[in-house]
Amino acid sequence: MADQHAQSGDDVRPTGIPAIRWDEPPEGPVLVLLDQTRLPAEEVELVCTDAPALVEAIRSLAVRGAPLLGIAGAYGVALAAARGFDVEAAAEALAGARPTAVNLAVGVRRARAAYQAALGRTGDREQAAEAALAAARALHREDAEASARMAAHGLALLDELLPGGGHRVLTHCNTGSLVSGGEGTAFAVALAAHRSGRLRRLWVDETRPLLQGARLTAYEAARSGMAYTLLTDNAAGSLFASGEVDAVLVGADRIAADGSVANKVGTYPLAVLARYHHVPFIVVAPVTTVDPDTPDGASIEVEQRAGHEVTGFAAPQVPAAGAEAGGGIPVAPLGTQAYNPAFDVTPPELVTAIVTEEGAVSPVTADALAELCDRSRRVTI
Amino acid sequence: MADQHAQSGDDVRPTGIPAIRWDEPPEGPVLVLLDQTRLPAEEVELVCTDAPALVEAIRSLAVRGAPLLGIAGAYGVALAAARGFDVEAAAEALAGARPTAVNLAVGVRRARAAYQAALGRTGDREQAAEAALAAARALHREDAEASARMAAHGLALLDELLPGGGHRVLTHCNTGSLVSGGEGTAFAVALAAHRSGRLRRLWVDETRPLLQGARLTAYEAARSGMAYTLLTDNAAGSLFASGEVDAVLVGADRIAADGSVANKVGTYPLAVLARYHHVPFIVVAPVTTVDPDTPDGASIEVEQRAGHEVTGFAAPQVPAAGAEAGGGIPVAPLGTQAYNPAFDVTPPELVTAIVTEEGAVSPVTADALAELCDRSRRVTI
Repeated sequence: MADQHAQSGDDVRPTGIPAIRWDEPPEGPVLVLLDQTRLPAEEVELVCTDAPALVEAIRSLAVRGAPLLGIAGAYGVALAAARGFDVEAAAEALAGARPTAVNLAVGVRRARAAYQAALGRTGDREQAAEAALAAARALHREDAEASARMAAHGLALLDELLPGGGHRVLTHCNTGSLVSGGEGTAFAVALAAHRSGRLRRLWVDETRPLLQGARLTAYEAARSGMAYTLLTDNAAGSLFASGEVDAVLVGADRIAADGSVANKVGTYPLAVLARYHHVPFIVVAPVTTVDPDTPDGASIEVEQRAGHEVTGFAAPQVPAAGAEAGGGIPVAPLGTQAYNPAFDVTPPELVTAIVTEEGAVSPVTADALAELCDRSRRVTI
Repeated sequence: MADQHAQSGDDVRPTGIPAIRWDEPPEGPVLVLLDQTRLPAEEVELVCTDAPALVEAIRSLAVRGAPLLGIAGAYGVALAAARGFDVEAAAEALAGARPTAVNLAVGVRRARAAYQAALGRTGDREQAAEAALAAARALHREDAEASARMAAHGLALLDELLPGGGHRVLTHCNTGSLVSGGEGTAFAVALAAHRSGRLRRLWVDETRPLLQGARLTAYEAARSGMAYTLLTDNAAGSLFASGEVDAVLVGADRIAADGSVANKVGTYPLAVLARYHHVPFIVVAPVTTVDPDTPDGASIEVEQRAGHEVTGFAAPQVPAAGAEAGGGIPVAPLGTQAYNPAFDVTPPELVTAIVTEEGAVSPVTADALAELCDRSRRVTI
């Protein structure tokens, strides 16, 4: 069950926007999400008291973004454990809430493993629940640290590729502190460039159909004081043609073992444009996004979402009276069928570099990626 | 001044939707437009009694599409003449209402030349007004004939390029009977393929920011009984990657002498994707779209439109109360700056063929285009 309440105005947020937080009011533990479907119009928190509420929040994109989904999944398992619900059922439902984001399943697995290990060791459900929560908190903290390291590696790469400085960076979808325990992935790199005075402009793709660029990235860019300009996704072509893009920075929802990158739909056309215009195309993602069990791009399951996201227009401010059930304001004739993949897949040959918290891989090859994952595992163990 | 009234339900429209018509009620001559900003929700006619009303209708895109703008411009001159307004002032305002569409200025010039010639010959303003109207009507009729010839040439080309039949065609923006005195340009080719049983699917780009694909092309496709599917502009990449697009068919707003094509923003990325995937990219436009006075792509003036088309969402059904002045429902943070070019420019090397009523040019070279224009001029004179 999820309740909503407007956030209090005295939250100062010195280091970013808390997209997710664990809270323990007298009524029992809860997972509190910033409802991203209401941004930028309203900052409303969504309070989840059980896993089904979190599954619903994940499906509706109230919480989204690959790293944050991992954290949410782990906290979801901890929530089910702390509230005494069936942990296995909760873990299964959470892991399957969105099929493409590998981090979600990874986060769920981690908290569940901690729960099971503690339960096996102690036979005590309360201690096991604490272990699950500790695992979720650890993932949350590690993700924040990974953000900072990705930002540093990414900025170093940008400076190397573009020695002149004054970077004009194009980004797609939303990859900032709203998707992460820290400052995000691709956005964190742009933010680092901004803080070092080397970001001339952030070009923000609006990212249809759900406008995460217009609603969320523009919101984060505005809060950070960056020079940014919004554009429709299809206007990126003119920008490339007129030489206004120095680099593309995007996140990833899943990276196959061969380096194929599944990311928000619209990423692949940017990669093709970048290649055609000899512009670096850089993917920024934590190592957990690399899935060794997915051999290549063709093996990535791409989530197909409901057509009404395309045939109708849903915005936080759209009054419910004007909206179809689940669909917003209709923009196409009734009965129109839509093709609405949530992601597309960019092959490794179009990716200049993959930047992770463990460093950058360039050129992107299966061997280089495998080596990076091994190194990461050695560090973690 | 323009009035609006809902269209009567007993209009059968056997051969298409009258996007424009000249009428002569007792109150005096009027130009009646189907208000395309209200489609597909409502079919509302906009009645223009003077050139400023028509200029406003052109700017707000109530009437749009390169060939139709030429016809509207010619009728606008005829309207000013018939109503006794200053014909020169009307012609100037109309020709400048939208800078990129060359057909608008061509249509205005033609009616004005007819007016001036008749006035010089007879000294009679009424006869001159009749001559302007006759010129507009002739342009209207010729455009309908040109549509039919483009459709035939385009279908022959498609069949030649794709001998297997079962064409799956991707199109952008709106190029059907709503932009033309006939059945349009690119859409007319798809319609011809549909009628001959050789169109397997029409992929319809929604065409942000104003959604002419979702609102208008889907409407025309639905009325024509075509198998069509709507997609966000950025989802075209996945379609190409999965081999679901056999050809791209688009219109043009201006074609430079070197074969560079200005068309609705989002066209150029499709051309780059088509090249990358070895898919034919075909431009369909009447010969009047070729502007010999524009030497190349860099010389094409691209209209930059207001940012609120991107930062806000305007749909026919959006209640006025929820909308900003001129901007619709805000989707980005207040104060967000937007890059909003109405068009982009595709260089000739990315265009497989330009199909006109006089035949197809392929490969697209300055010489071949010049020859085509010469042939057309000889036929017209």
